[in-house]
Amino acid sequence: MSALADLQVTVVGLGLMGASLAGALRGKCRVVLGVARRNETAAEALARGLLDRASTDLAAGVRDADVVVLATPVRTIMRLVDELGPLLPAGCVLMDLGSTKAQITERMAQLPATIEPLGAHPMCGRESSGLAAADPALYQGCLFVLSPLARTSPETLSLGQALVRAVGGRPLVLDAQRHDRLVATASHLPYLLACVLVAAAEQAAAQDAALWPLCASGFRDTSRLAACDVTMMLDILLTNRPAVLAALDMAGRELHALSELLAAADEDGLSAALSACRA
Amino acid sequence: MSALADLQVTVVGLGLMGASLAGALRGKCRVVLGVARRNETAAEALARGLLDRASTDLAAGVRDADVVVLATPVRTIMRLVDELGPLLPAGCVLMDLGSTKAQITERMAQLPATIEPLGAHPMCGRESSGLAAADPALYQGCLFVLSPLARTSPETLSLGQALVRAVGGRPLVLDAQRHDRLVATASHLPYLLACVLVAAAEQAAAQDAALWPLCASGFRDTSRLAACDVTMMLDILLTNRPAVLAALDMAGRELHALSELLAAADEDGLSAALSACRA
Repeated sequence: MSALADLQVTVVGLGLMGASLAGALRGKCRVVLGVARRNETAAEALARGLLDRASTDLAAGVRDADVVVLATPVRTIMRLVDELGPLLPAGCVLMDLGSTKAQITERMAQLPATIEPLGAHPMCGRESSGLAAADPALYQGCLFVLSPLARTSPETLSLGQALVRAVGGRPLVLDAQRHDRLVATASHLPYLLACVLVAAAEQAAAQDAALWPLCASGFRDTSRLAACDVTMMLDILLTNRPAVLAALDMAGRELHALSELLAAADEDGLSAALSACRA
Repeated sequence: MSALADLQVTVVGLGLMGASLAGALRGKCRVVLGVARRNETAAEALARGLLDRASTDLAAGVRDADVVVLATPVRTIMRLVDELGPLLPAGCVLMDLGSTKAQITERMAQLPATIEPLGAHPMCGRESSGLAAADPALYQGCLFVLSPLARTSPETLSLGQALVRAVGGRPLVLDAQRHDRLVATASHLPYLLACVLVAAAEQAAAQDAALWPLCASGFRDTSRLAACDVTMMLDILLTNRPAVLAALDMAGRELHALSELLAAADEDGLSAALSACRA
């Protein structure tokens, strides 16, 4: 496998993650080509200097690629993996940036043997989404999970690690199943608890609209993730259901336990529980 | 009632809230006197220029006060209200900065008729606590709830509003019971959900320690409030139990509803619920 500098990388999907990755890779690869659905997106990404070339034709965009990176919502990635199987040139590395890994790598396992698949998940993001928010510095210092399949060659994994380092990220190799189990608690549960807070606040505000002005910085911090893109989150939750349900169940039990301690005015028990959470 | 500039204000408790208030009032009142338990705290607050005078003697500190502001955890405020009754000079305004208002104003209602009580709650704060974190700019732009008692005179309420404006705050008059019901959702529930997230993560990390490095900015935002001072939060929760329990119950039902939608893979229902939280 050649060095990154000699390769063409095609990024499919020019939202926040894809356009930022393209911008971070540009100048470090022979060609960075971006594929968008809409002409306007492709033109804007080019105009912003995030790409060497742009296309709205998936087949044409991947034809000469050495590495293809799928940067769309998870279930679109799964469809693209199927669709790209017959389109990718022999020896092409196919990566993705999806937030869940097990279902995606299962699809990747079905790819023709000439393709080199590698799951990936950069653990960064912003509240804002879309090309307008793209920033080549997004991946600086970002933990970037790589989930190789059983069939992934050591060379492909090395290339993935080189790509991660080229954009400023910190590669971490993690099995897809284990990744999904961990991010259910580390990432998907925080999102759902933020939604729970907003939903409870909506109910309270329906009784007394004076609620909203009283929601200060603490409320805003805790509820911030509820602003995440719903399409993206829906894909994530639906492709990681058992692990997310287990995390929600755990959270429900912890909530119930705190509620019981407070109902009993068990000051020592409550103090111990809250102190443990502070550490 | 004289203008604020002619008055002595005594602040009892020189933690984050009290020392910041003293610093913000200094130069805008005749004298700002701070009362701390420990000599070191009194000396440090003086050295930092947050006070005109300092004392570790409560009785001496309030003897010549026109306004006394109690800036300690809620249940200490309640004890101080009882203790100060016989110590305050006639006509003295007694305010507090406690995060719950109903139980404090009930205590204030028992004060001698010569005292002018006024509940207050500045809706700001920082993760860090204590004198070291004190900042006279803390109250700039801060919503500052004032909860007058039935016996509070219009002049006392006006003085309270002038004091709030003097430190850069935005006064909002709100009945104590209504305040407590609203902050249970706006403020105490976010704290408890942050604790629930940390507690669930502790459980998950006990199974797989790789969890912590995967906890990115979203996790940190959502869990930030779990770092609040436990003594302060315990007082708040225990003096607002019915409202906090109702908020927890609401959150538990919202969590269960999301869990049911996910368990059923009800994409439309989940999409609608998550979209509602985003708005």
